Amino acid sequence: MTLALDPTAQDLLFREAHTAYTFSDEPVSDEQIRAVYELVKYAPTAFNQSPLRITLFRSPEARSRLVKHMSEGNKPKTSTAPLTAVLSVDLEFHERLPELLPHAPSVKDTFFSEAEARESAGTFNATLQAGYFIVGVRAAGLAAGPMSGFDRHGVDKEFFGDGRQKSLLVVNIGRPGEEAYKPRLPRLTYEDAVTTV
Amino acid sequence: MTLALDPTAQDLLFREAHTAYTFSDEPVSDEQIRAVYELVKYAPTAFNQSPLRITLFRSPEARSRLVKHMSEGNKPKTSTAPLTAVLSVDLEFHERLPELLPHAPSVKDTFFSEAEARESAGTFNATLQAGYFIVGVRAAGLAAGPMSGFDRHGVDKEFFGDGRQKSLLVVNIGRPGEEAYKPRLPRLTYEDAVTTV
Repeated sequence: MTLALDPTAQDLLFREAHTAYTFSDEPVSDEQIRAVYELVKYAPTAFNQSPLRITLFRSPEARSRLVKHMSEGNKPKTSTAPLTAVLSVDLEFHERLPELLPHAPSVKDTFFSEAEARESAGTFNATLQAGYFIVGVRAAGLAAGPMSGFDRHGVDKEFFGDGRQKSLLVVNIGRPGEEAYKPRLPRLTYEDAVTTV
Repeated sequence: MTLALDPTAQDLLFREAHTAYTFSDEPVSDEQIRAVYELVKYAPTAFNQSPLRITLFRSPEARSRLVKHMSEGNKPKTSTAPLTAVLSVDLEFHERLPELLPHAPSVKDTFFSEAEARESAGTFNATLQAGYFIVGVRAAGLAAGPMSGFDRHGVDKEFFGDGRQKSLLVVNIGRPGEEAYKPRLPRLTYEDAVTTV
């Protein structure tokens, strides 16, 4: 046993988890997403900057406005998933740093007074958090369908019109439906991906 | 029980996991990192592009070359951690797409013939994978110390001189040492981070 995590959890989060392409009708509750957030919020970001924001699309009206911006291949599943989340970065995340990093509140101004520095660090750290969130959805026993195929500028203009947030990833969430999974694709070998120096 | 993941695993991966600032002398074996990789390789990337590369710094000579590029506050722990990994993006990841996406090999040229498209998608997806990797290190019962404080251009020039890879994150890995952890910092509430529309 090289891993401390038990095999059932390994399967749930990684080995038997697949991106879902169809979903059942079973709803996803706010309590489930709250439980996911309350778990993954602990995973690390630089200076604890915690720049990820999550927008849950529940109302049919909001959902149809979102679907318009999805690529053609992503429209049907985004229309029918029990819940769809837009993951975004808050480009003004630094405003919360005095609370999030109480022992070093000056980091807010020392490192993040420039919009360019915030966009770079915020996007990187919110993307790490997007990875944690996908693992967290699986920890809830739910299937995730992350999608990069959408019109970022369209989504940002329609839902984040003040420019404060930028969308990163759209994630369908639910129980897998019929023929939800495609066969597992190959992965790079350890030797391909890892080098020792 | 809103989460399917058992509480012990929740604690191991998230709730009781902390960024480590000191490490014990216990070595981290290649087998442990292989087990981490063989687990987290299954987590999703767009088009299965799998752009993350991991460079393990084992030799004292390579380690000291890396430490030079770390910010002052990160030098001591990077010198003394049992193992340090540089996580990077392979900007030519598309070359492997015909193997990784055998049912749609044309994606290589349709979407990724331009270096700019590769850098944008590759950086995003490798960063998601960096998030999975940090969770995977914890799944091995190890502590991770991820660091953004280093000279990216210096690291890239010194270790990825052909320009094919760009560094994203440096991660110290090992068993926690004495006074390894700082007190848990506050996190944003669910209401702060999550909006429903």
